[in-house]
Amino acid sequence: MTTRSITDRLGGLAFGGDYNPEQWDEPVWKEDDTLMRKARVNLVTVGVFSWALLEPEEGRYDFAWLDAHIERLHANGVAVDLATPTASPPPWFTLTHPDALPVTPDGTRLTHGSRDTYCLAAPAYRSAARRIASALAERYGHHPALALWHVHNEYATLCYCEYAAAAFREWLRARHGSLDALNEAWGTAFWSQRYTSWEQVLPPRATQWHKNPGQTLDFRRFWSDETIAAFREQRDAIRAHSDRPVTTNLMLPAYQNLDLWALARELDVVSSDHYPGSPGLDAAADVAFHADRVRSLAGGRPWLLMEQGTNTVYDGDRVLGKEPGEILRHTLGHIARGSEGALFFQWRQSRAGAETWHSAMVPHAGPDSRTFREVTQAGEAVARLGELAGSTVDASVAVLHDADAWWALSVDGLPSAGLGYHKELSRAHRALWDAGVTVDFAHPEHELNRYALVIAPALFLLSDAGAENLRRYVAGGGTLLVQHASGCVDDRMQARLGGYPAGPLRDALGIRVEEHRPLRADDRIALSDGSLGTVWSESLHTKGAETLAAYTHGMLAGSPALTRHRFGTGQGWYLSTRLDDADYGALVRRLLDEAGAGAEAPGLPGGVEAVTRHAPDGRRWQVLINHGADAVPLPEPVHDLLTDTTAHELPPGGCAVLRRP
Amino acid sequence: MTTRSITDRLGGLAFGGDYNPEQWDEPVWKEDDTLMRKARVNLVTVGVFSWALLEPEEGRYDFAWLDAHIERLHANGVAVDLATPTASPPPWFTLTHPDALPVTPDGTRLTHGSRDTYCLAAPAYRSAARRIASALAERYGHHPALALWHVHNEYATLCYCEYAAAAFREWLRARHGSLDALNEAWGTAFWSQRYTSWEQVLPPRATQWHKNPGQTLDFRRFWSDETIAAFREQRDAIRAHSDRPVTTNLMLPAYQNLDLWALARELDVVSSDHYPGSPGLDAAADVAFHADRVRSLAGGRPWLLMEQGTNTVYDGDRVLGKEPGEILRHTLGHIARGSEGALFFQWRQSRAGAETWHSAMVPHAGPDSRTFREVTQAGEAVARLGELAGSTVDASVAVLHDADAWWALSVDGLPSAGLGYHKELSRAHRALWDAGVTVDFAHPEHELNRYALVIAPALFLLSDAGAENLRRYVAGGGTLLVQHASGCVDDRMQARLGGYPAGPLRDALGIRVEEHRPLRADDRIALSDGSLGTVWSESLHTKGAETLAAYTHGMLAGSPALTRHRFGTGQGWYLSTRLDDADYGALVRRLLDEAGAGAEAPGLPGGVEAVTRHAPDGRRWQVLINHGADAVPLPEPVHDLLTDTTAHELPPGGCAVLRRP
Amino acid sequence: MTTRSITDRLGGLAFGGDYNPEQWDEPVWKEDDTLMRKARVNLVTVGVFSWALLEPEEGRYDFAWLDAHIERLHANGVAVDLATPTASPPPWFTLTHPDALPVTPDGTRLTHGSRDTYCLAAPAYRSAARRIASALAERYGHHPALALWHVHNEYATLCYCEYAAAAFREWLRARHGSLDALNEAWGTAFWSQRYTSWEQVLPPRATQWHKNPGQTLDFRRFWSDETIAAFREQRDAIRAHSDRPVTTNLMLPAYQNLDLWALARELDVVSSDHYPGSPGLDAAADVAFHADRVRSLAGGRPWLLMEQGTNTVYDGDRVLGKEPGEILRHTLGHIARGSEGALFFQWRQSRAGAETWHSAMVPHAGPDSRTFREVTQAGEAVARLGELAGSTVDASVAVLHDADAWWALSVDGLPSAGLGYHKELSRAHRALWDAGVTVDFAHPEHELNRYALVIAPALFLLSDAGAENLRRYVAGGGTLLVQHASGCVDDRMQARLGGYPAGPLRDALGIRVEEHRPLRADDRIALSDGSLGTVWSESLHTKGAETLAAYTHGMLAGSPALTRHRFGTGQGWYLSTRLDDADYGALVRRLLDEAGAGAEAPGLPGGVEAVTRHAPDGRRWQVLINHGADAVPLPEPVHDLLTDTTAHELPPGGCAVLRRP
Repeated sequence: MTTRSITDRLGGLAFGGDYNPEQWDEPVWKEDDTLMRKARVNLVTVGVFSWALLEPEEGRYDFAWLDAHIERLHANGVAVDLATPTASPPPWFTLTHPDALPVTPDGTRLTHGSRDTYCLAAPAYRSAARRIASALAERYGHHPALALWHVHNEYATLCYCEYAAAAFREWLRARHGSLDALNEAWGTAFWSQRYTSWEQVLPPRATQWHKNPGQTLDFRRFWSDETIAAFREQRDAIRAHSDRPVTTNLMLPAYQNLDLWALARELDVVSSDHYPGSPGLDAAADVAFHADRVRSLAGGRPWLLMEQGTNTVYDGDRVLGKEPGEILRHTLGHIARGSEGALFFQWRQSRAGAETWHSAMVPHAGPDSRTFREVTQAGEAVARLGELAGSTVDASVAVLHDADAWWALSVDGLPSAGLGYHKELSRAHRALWDAGVTVDFAHPEHELNRYALVIAPALFLLSDAGAENLRRYVAGGGTLLVQHASGCVDDRMQARLGGYPAGPLRDALGIRVEEHRPLRADDRIALSDGSLGTVWSESLHTKGAETLAAYTHGMLAGSPALTRHRFGTGQGWYLSTRLDDADYGALVRRLLDEAGAGAEAPGLPGGVEAVTRHAPDGRRWQVLINHGADAVPLPEPVHDLLTDTTAHELPPGGCAVLRRP
Repeated sequence: MTTRSITDRLGGLAFGGDYNPEQWDEPVWKEDDTLMRKARVNLVTVGVFSWALLEPEEGRYDFAWLDAHIERLHANGVAVDLATPTASPPPWFTLTHPDALPVTPDGTRLTHGSRDTYCLAAPAYRSAARRIASALAERYGHHPALALWHVHNEYATLCYCEYAAAAFREWLRARHGSLDALNEAWGTAFWSQRYTSWEQVLPPRATQWHKNPGQTLDFRRFWSDETIAAFREQRDAIRAHSDRPVTTNLMLPAYQNLDLWALARELDVVSSDHYPGSPGLDAAADVAFHADRVRSLAGGRPWLLMEQGTNTVYDGDRVLGKEPGEILRHTLGHIARGSEGALFFQWRQSRAGAETWHSAMVPHAGPDSRTFREVTQAGEAVARLGELAGSTVDASVAVLHDADAWWALSVDGLPSAGLGYHKELSRAHRALWDAGVTVDFAHPEHELNRYALVIAPALFLLSDAGAENLRRYVAGGGTLLVQHASGCVDDRMQARLGGYPAGPLRDALGIRVEEHRPLRADDRIALSDGSLGTVWSESLHTKGAETLAAYTHGMLAGSPALTRHRFGTGQGWYLSTRLDDADYGALVRRLLDEAGAGAEAPGLPGGVEAVTRHAPDGRRWQVLINHGADAVPLPEPVHDLLTDTTAHELPPGGCAVLRRP
Repeated sequence: MTTRSITDRLGGLAFGGDYNPEQWDEPVWKEDDTLMRKARVNLVTVGVFSWALLEPEEGRYDFAWLDAHIERLHANGVAVDLATPTASPPPWFTLTHPDALPVTPDGTRLTHGSRDTYCLAAPAYRSAARRIASALAERYGHHPALALWHVHNEYATLCYCEYAAAAFREWLRARHGSLDALNEAWGTAFWSQRYTSWEQVLPPRATQWHKNPGQTLDFRRFWSDETIAAFREQRDAIRAHSDRPVTTNLMLPAYQNLDLWALARELDVVSSDHYPGSPGLDAAADVAFHADRVRSLAGGRPWLLMEQGTNTVYDGDRVLGKEPGEILRHTLGHIARGSEGALFFQWRQSRAGAETWHSAMVPHAGPDSRTFREVTQAGEAVARLGELAGSTVDASVAVLHDADAWWALSVDGLPSAGLGYHKELSRAHRALWDAGVTVDFAHPEHELNRYALVIAPALFLLSDAGAENLRRYVAGGGTLLVQHASGCVDDRMQARLGGYPAGPLRDALGIRVEEHRPLRADDRIALSDGSLGTVWSESLHTKGAETLAAYTHGMLAGSPALTRHRFGTGQGWYLSTRLDDADYGALVRRLLDEAGAGAEAPGLPGGVEAVTRHAPDGRRWQVLINHGADAVPLPEPVHDLLTDTTAHELPPGGCAVLRRP
């Protein structure tokens, strides 16, 4: 099953959001019907936080209220994305199953009063989740309004309780086979940590000093697998009663508790939530970063934007609003990169509860508001793009992404707090986005031959197979840029010996790193090509590579900083420091030139985004978004699907969607 | 009973401090007697931390040592403010009643070793507190030295234990009537928090994400009521045996765990402690802020400064000393605004214990010290002001203050960390103080007609009744300034719909706020009148109001920032951003002009304070305090009560108290 | 027993490091043998983290693997420093003795997964530690390879469990004799803390506000004594079976949980670990600071550098590498000041575990590396210095150091967060190091007559005996500089009355401090001699002293800031503020001049270090280290032991060791 089953049912792209009618009453529901029609809403997510209403006491279900809402929506032409409510067990669950509440590393048992107060490994929670998923599927599995199943919500919690410990041990047994192998993998010879029985093995709970990095990494992996197993149980329970596709809404980038590649493989439809962390152009770039990642998780197939905010930019300790036009621009930004529509959290802004101030399609102020008018405008735009359904996006450049590498940079005892995963990943994407290039993300062990250029930022952990895969990619003609502090440990968190990075990658890059030389927080280090590095440097020897830039001062003076190695029919580049943004951008543009992987629509000014979707039958559409404050003339007058008129220019903040020959 | 019963007994205003003779021995006591006479001490607080001595084991009392001290003080002409020692249960209490120790939100049970280690809701604590209060009252209730009862000390602790949970449930039952009503009030439909039995309801303990705002607010209210109930039990136990007035020393502004309006109503005499948080002129303004608040809590009646420090300014992580003359200036600052004297914590600086470095009237250095000399000077000054006893202060301007509004700004999930209650409250007062205006504080539901001007800062929560009251105030001729982010939620923490603020206030202000637009931490936003806003802005529509200043840039360009509405016979002003200090001061001065509420003594230079106390019989006194570094000539030579001489000027740092016709 | 027994066995100074062969396998062991010979390694520490291997289950020992390594090392000419592995109990220990795990002040029980997860006061831990120490001593006590016993590792943990509480009570009984005396000492009359039975007395666990300072101080002292007792048990168990010297590796300066003077007295050989916290010249100064402290702890006798890093500078949240040449310079820096060699942590960089990124003698990159080459260079240098064995260093200047004073500045409720112990101690040493002066550290109650100058920084706590000793020192002709905030409390944490500091010191200094006047974090205060003070000032009266500099502004204008008192035949100086670094350096140089305690090798440029070691038989050696970037000509050509050639200059970063007549 694919997103096609949804868009077929909707007769076009999806538009809508989370709908929680249980927060309101009859007069509001009536207004909802009217306003949804006005805003061209055709899909809403219901039931995400409805466990307490659906199962008011253990084993007793009340579906009547939900029946009524679904019938009302259906009558109003709105399809349903039905959620299992398992992200928020009701208060009665706490009292009935106190052993299923989550426990922090220091042993604090959390209680209800928020959401997500459960341990995913607790048997009582798991069976309760299966039961309610099954009951929902049985009742609504073939309802004509039903377009999609939405299991749970933003899987992300951790737990360190006894159930987690027991399940962790089982997982470790399966992974390592024996205690001896586990001891070897974790290096327990150090600090006298050798385990002599399985019951001695614990999650990484509160301890005296640094935790064991292998244990920390394996616990992350285990928990990701445990989470996916919990998802699978619900999915399978649903499939037993329903023929509609199943998804769960991923939450990136902030959450790092899951191997998203693995979870995405289990989904009929990949969907994801997106909330930018900075305003303005940064937010637009973050939309593209998110959308390219989710499409890549979906294996290049179309996907679905499950949540965005109409007026929500999380900027540290405050929540900024969006600028006029951003609702449409962000909506199109996601659709341009493969989303089959755009949903929001939530339809109507809560008047009470923990997210009272989270924006919505109908704000506290009501429909007489800029927000609702822009929502309506976006709904109308999406309604005109039905022909894009099923089409997707190609990219000739990939950035490598791996949960293991991320987790590896979260263990205790690293050489520098300046290392970080997400910031390097997003920066690599941003440099490519600034250059007008559409980007895929790929796992280091994926087949990479289709890409002209591959960038590997922050791959601190790189498996033997990954290193071998990258070597093969370069040998076969690829252009690879590996960035500082990559390939330092293997998939057990064990350091590479004899020089970093992992051997096959040393071959491909024609270098050997002898020493890491972290920089002080405010230090900069000069390169011979005039660029500046921060955070990190390395003592590096070329083994066949040429030096494109060398360090100019201190003990590294004359030592290679940026190298290129012609290897097989490709090129392996290595950058051993974190360049300033401008210098890094210039390097990426240079690589694009050399790899022949230019902008999708060359000649557009900065801040104007152009992405092409193409259908299996060869049809193509170009989405143009002007994030800038100046009008941008189009090379030739074109027919804009959004307005059904001929466009001569993109006004400031304006968008257009064109059919391409 | 009023402060009059105290000043009558003392024959004038009170001067003294906490006296803890149990820390010292006979020779020191003898010196204390001498030094107290020298410093004109006439009232000391005893017994605050004496539980362990008064009841060395449960149920066995030892009053002999206290008898002796009280007799000695009495013989020396010093009256006694007798404290119940319940803020500090002795170590034996921990071992006898471990269940009465306080528990933090994450379940940590605190133990003794400091002070205030009890749960106010624990039955064992409550009965122990009642018993010792009763025993003290029985023994000393009619002692001729006794002037005042001092229940407990700075009520402020919280607890999340099972007793707290049970009492919280009882309180919720009484407030909401039914679980359905509670579910409705807290919006438990969101995040699946619906309660189906009372036992599921808990204090806001450690949980996974944001806590429910309604639950948080109600827990604050409950705890305040629980605290007041604990106070009342002691007060009533005392009243059964004594005819002297009862107080408890409030602690503001730092502590926000109590509804001070409610607690103050229970007191025979309102008393409070004051420690400034910044030195110099800020400290002087903070004295006035504190004194105006406490007088307002006392319903405009005289009150008593129960604690100040001789040499203590809490400046973040260090404690600064006071400047020469500040002991007298702060003392007069409080008296000017209605205090019937000035007490200090404490008489003699501890040589050991947790407050060894807290300043005192007799410092470690002994009486041969600047501090003790200034204390003596202040004691002599207070002794000359006996005729002020019973007089009080009038104000024509009020600032609104409400514990609910404060608590509302402490819940999870607010739009901006830049919002804050205390800083806005004190800034409004400071602007008025800078303008030479004496200020009352009032609750939003108080009768406000007597005020020419009312300022409402940070009233994020405003009840229906409060909104209606403000509407009535303006309609009836008042001038009201409402500041940003006010009236956003009702008294259940539920957002106002259809536009902020609450409806009746929208009428009075002639505006409708559509959207909050929080600003980034360092951003400023320009207004058309040249002023600058920070922290916050709003998308605002006038509905009858005129725009006095509009935003000039960005999406709010041209949108009203400051408005005035002529409504009934009054004016409703609305300010939708946080102005810079200087701009805010100018706005406040403009409002004073328009409302006809000028400075009490126009023409005085900045930093010279003038406040008038008046007696019921028409006598009036003006207190003048020169906080500046320059001498200030007086308009005409006057008789200064402090020196019993004719004053021609106020020297730098000088003070005078004049009889006014 | 002394270090002589080690150097005699080695035939020279020690060179090597921690050797953990259990992390590796046979081929690596073979390479280790070769590389150790190459690097001139003659002593390695084994077994530090081997408990899990040595005792794989309780009471069953496996020494075979260790036998083999010791024989191999012995055959290779490498002696052994054999560690008891008690710093890291194995996982089985947690399951067998959960009551022996450490508990934090808030009651969290830590678990294994790191190291040091034990409570030193737990009977099960103590007996397990004794048993394994005894078993090791029995087996290896007379092995010819054995040069030294290394008990435990960096004793530093705390615990607040019930065992800790019980042992604390016993200790308090012994110290105070009676509960009355304890109540008096801790000032429990304040805050109603009077104890009426011993069982009420607890460690300073989590409580509501400030903790009792006397309790906090006594708990620190108790824990230090408890730690020393735990050490003594192991030492005595070893001595029953072995004739080799016993040490434990101290960890300074970061760890402050021990009275190092007391622990050092129990050691046959004093040894210590050193890791600098800043790079470059700061690191070199820190080497000298460390080495002077450890030699002083050793009573002026030679000592042993047990750990340093080849490439490790802990700079906040990142670990910087060392610069080329620093391995040798730091090695010689320690040897110059009395170390009988230089060991590193560790021989081979771990490929796994919590310290994977901690540098080592053989880095991940292997022997083909700058690091190993420099290690080899340092090993060769050390090998040439055998004749220095047994010689030591004299100093004519002392800085006072006392654990009580340090702990006193860590209690709750101090007047300023700007006070601090370690930063003042190291700054005093740095000023003297900059002046080319070799320094001893001394306890305030030590005999001080041999020193021309004594500096007392941050002696917030000073016992009666200490104050009397300092008075006697000055009276007898010494020059003493006492710095701000010294002598404020006695050894019970009770404030000095009548003026600070303690009486005998007031006599010696000819002053009386009336008031502390802490400064705001960014404030500076000007002195009449042009210098600037920060952090702190004092209102001070001279009582015989002359004023060398006075404050110039504010309430302290004209008040003495720096004073000198001619007392007996000596001089007592008092500095009442924290001078800027440059001003402080000038003051220290002035004091050196006046006291006649000049640089060891006058005329050397800044950053060139010269220290003299002398043997009991009168032989002398001068170690010269050029930390600067310029070559420094030597006054005359000299024979350099390091190169066995004639040296005419010290090149940049260069070193030389000369025989002196």
